[in-house]
Amino acid sequence: MAKQEDDFKKVISHAKEYGYVFQSSEIYDGLSAVYDYAQNGAELKKNIREYWWKAMVNLNENIVGIDAAIFMHPTTWKASGHVDAFNDPLIDNKDSKKRYRADVLIEDYVAKIEAKIEKEVAKASKRFGDTFDKKQFLATNQRVVEYQEKADAILKRMGKSLENEDLADVKSLIEELDIACPMSGSKNWTDVKQFNLMFGTKLGASAESAMDLYLRPETAQGIFVNFLNVQKTGRMKIPFGIAQTGKAFRNEIVARQFIFRMREFEQMEMQFFIRPGTQKEWYEKWKENRLKWHLSLGMGEENYRFHDHEKLAHYADAAADIEFRFPFGFKELEGIHSRTDFDLSQHEKFSGKKLQYFDPELKESYVPYVVETSIGLDRMFLAVFSNSLQEEELENNTTRTVLKLPAVLAPTKAAVLPLVKKDGLPDVAHKIIEDLKWDFNVIYDEKDAVGRRYRRQDAAGTPFCITVDHQSLEDQTVTIRHRDTMEQHRVAISEVKSIIHKEVDMRSWLQRMG
Amino acid sequence: MAKQEDDFKKVISHAKEYGYVFQSSEIYDGLSAVYDYAQNGAELKKNIREYWWKAMVNLNENIVGIDAAIFMHPTTWKASGHVDAFNDPLIDNKDSKKRYRADVLIEDYVAKIEAKIEKEVAKASKRFGDTFDKKQFLATNQRVVEYQEKADAILKRMGKSLENEDLADVKSLIEELDIACPMSGSKNWTDVKQFNLMFGTKLGASAESAMDLYLRPETAQGIFVNFLNVQKTGRMKIPFGIAQTGKAFRNEIVARQFIFRMREFEQMEMQFFIRPGTQKEWYEKWKENRLKWHLSLGMGEENYRFHDHEKLAHYADAAADIEFRFPFGFKELEGIHSRTDFDLSQHEKFSGKKLQYFDPELKESYVPYVVETSIGLDRMFLAVFSNSLQEEELENNTTRTVLKLPAVLAPTKAAVLPLVKKDGLPDVAHKIIEDLKWDFNVIYDEKDAVGRRYRRQDAAGTPFCITVDHQSLEDQTVTIRHRDTMEQHRVAISEVKSIIHKEVDMRSWLQRMG
Repeated sequence: MAKQEDDFKKVISHAKEYGYVFQSSEIYDGLSAVYDYAQNGAELKKNIREYWWKAMVNLNENIVGIDAAIFMHPTTWKASGHVDAFNDPLIDNKDSKKRYRADVLIEDYVAKIEAKIEKEVAKASKRFGDTFDKKQFLATNQRVVEYQEKADAILKRMGKSLENEDLADVKSLIEELDIACPMSGSKNWTDVKQFNLMFGTKLGASAESAMDLYLRPETAQGIFVNFLNVQKTGRMKIPFGIAQTGKAFRNEIVARQFIFRMREFEQMEMQFFIRPGTQKEWYEKWKENRLKWHLSLGMGEENYRFHDHEKLAHYADAAADIEFRFPFGFKELEGIHSRTDFDLSQHEKFSGKKLQYFDPELKESYVPYVVETSIGLDRMFLAVFSNSLQEEELENNTTRTVLKLPAVLAPTKAAVLPLVKKDGLPDVAHKIIEDLKWDFNVIYDEKDAVGRRYRRQDAAGTPFCITVDHQSLEDQTVTIRHRDTMEQHRVAISEVKSIIHKEVDMRSWLQRMG
Repeated sequence: MAKQEDDFKKVISHAKEYGYVFQSSEIYDGLSAVYDYAQNGAELKKNIREYWWKAMVNLNENIVGIDAAIFMHPTTWKASGHVDAFNDPLIDNKDSKKRYRADVLIEDYVAKIEAKIEKEVAKASKRFGDTFDKKQFLATNQRVVEYQEKADAILKRMGKSLENEDLADVKSLIEELDIACPMSGSKNWTDVKQFNLMFGTKLGASAESAMDLYLRPETAQGIFVNFLNVQKTGRMKIPFGIAQTGKAFRNEIVARQFIFRMREFEQMEMQFFIRPGTQKEWYEKWKENRLKWHLSLGMGEENYRFHDHEKLAHYADAAADIEFRFPFGFKELEGIHSRTDFDLSQHEKFSGKKLQYFDPELKESYVPYVVETSIGLDRMFLAVFSNSLQEEELENNTTRTVLKLPAVLAPTKAAVLPLVKKDGLPDVAHKIIEDLKWDFNVIYDEKDAVGRRYRRQDAAGTPFCITVDHQSLEDQTVTIRHRDTMEQHRVAISEVKSIIHKEVDMRSWLQRMG
């Protein structure tokens, strides 16, 4: 755990030091759970978005992309259920005046029980050595079994109470467990209340005519309300998909873990419209397809797993997460949801407009079913960034920090370095840049010894360093150094562009999806 | 004027019919001054953004891009002056309960006077025929001179009152001019009040701890607050620029003209940080550079003009607009502003942090000056779209509607069309798509006669149609049809990709900037 925390801190500080992510409004001491993407982060984020858009929109003949506004008619959120049900259960401590999510207080309590179990396991494992059977120990050691039963019972009761909106029982549970405010130690709690997570604002100037608006908490509804217009003007035939990327906003009470859970974040969603009855098949296909997309980046199959939801949201008949091994453990990276005809039917009901598709093969009209793929762009950024940050022991007993970003996503594809700042080497370097810059984001760096510049580019995630030396003047060659292997090859200047293309072009990366 | 209005209506309906722009939340009868980009619009918007990013960020060694959040610390907007001075003067009619911008009411009144002048001019021009000298007429005809003097006096008085925050005099002016509510005809007005244009929201859950936030009314401040972090982590040396694209929000009272003035819109801004005293030179350079960027798209030099501001904003020591000929006349498309050190100095003052740059050549620290280029992405979209929509008379006395988008920006680069739906032609077409789709956004279309499909692609703005016919089966050739000339050439399938590349690649378009 301490190692994990330490690793995660390194990720955060590296992200700042190398111009990837800054705290928002840092000069004003920051804004909680909001971050800005800096010069390298903006390019990495853009490249991830483009990698998704290419795979989802441009490569699929039957998927188109849209860009709906953040502001939507407020009835949208009545129809979607967000006005009534997009809540967190909150509780205040009367002494410290601090506010908490009631379910998180309880989950933190359960986490402590689980830590105790782990401690018992570690002790026993040490005692029994090779003969230690963890599974058997968990099932038979009385103390451990009791712990586990207690933890399970607490979570079960909480789940049931939340489901039944029995907030009084959630409070009782907190009191029975004797949970204290982490800040003050006080157990003087208010009642538990539901708090809606949507940010509100007002459109229009006068008090009478002002309209209550929400900042969208998800991009999906922008697709649903446009479904029929896109289908008709785009002459789309079912099955077809509508994709979009864009900002969404949630007034999270407990937002933490850096860019993993932010109040302002970006989604990449695709809604696939299908014939009712075929949802199982498409759900499985999209699960498989989306996992392949992730695997195409080569970040290690062992870092992904599916988590099928047992408890389903009110709109879903099947749902799974693709989880990724973040620095703080396996967590949701993407969701695949079989949403039935829930959303379109709700919008039919609330708008009074028919949202049906005439199926020319079946010769009948119906409200399509929907399978959704939904990924957080910021989470994807964190997955890529944290997985790529490595410290390597080198042969000469030094270590190097290297950010092994998939080359297709790297913000800067190549740094062009004159070995020295004189003898015309900078001119040659600039001439190389003049040609490369049309195809790639490239930079020039002449400061410090070349070894130090290599390390800097390693840490910044640049896949290639092109070094111009005195031999370059004679035979029009340069050395090209590969970030991951540190190998250097001498190549003709005229070859550099095609070498980089081969390693960074989306085509070869996405073709790994098969 | 009627012709203009008619043209503009055609633009709006074409944008809907061909999947470019839909009204937001149309099924809920729309949301005023908010629009969604549909399947073709999303790609066009993306391509414009990319064309700007490439030119500004990737091609300039000393400009980097960032992606700051929409939410910022609220003190940002105190420092920038938006909390105190980003207002519109509003007035309510007590009978109709309608709210107006007081300055717009007065400007509309003046517009009526100017219409009278135009009427006199038209009458006289008809009377005098060839001998009519408009300039002389305006200077000497007594009635016209009186009209003009009255109009000038009204605007002068209004400008002065607004500048001095003398809102009582603005109201007096409305009363003296006997201006009536356009809805009700009533002259029963309230006082004039300032109304802030920023959208507000609240961060956090509890009433005590909630923080009043604004949705940013401009992206520029996201650059200023990050200036020092970018400069340090990016090792930037003055002069250098920071660019970003992103959403901004303004609670416009009178929002009209389609996507020209929206409540939610996207900006593409670049702040160029320079040594104090060099601002005149950089201001001129950026004016020239930005105009070249626009001209590179080949939409006609005659459609652009500079408008130098006489009245400057409080932060500027020089400012100009690049105006474009929209369907409703010349209007601002982009602004170039010499913002001095106003913003950085304000943030120093409000944050208590030094925002200075140590200049290694001068060996001294200073707050840099800033020259800004700021363009509305949605306006640029409207400029490109409206300018490209043309009706052409053809030789056979028919007309065709064609959307002559610059090929580099077109959402779909090519449509691949099998002449008939059989004999294996669709297979060949799909095979061509399988290869092209990695490089371009391409579509398949087999429905209707091929002539009709050509017209459809003309109207949708697709620069190339690739038609597969029976000869294709024999000799591996296709015809390639050019949208603008309607010329068709027979080419080998293996050549198609490079032909398209030549016409659509950013390099050749941007190199026209010289």
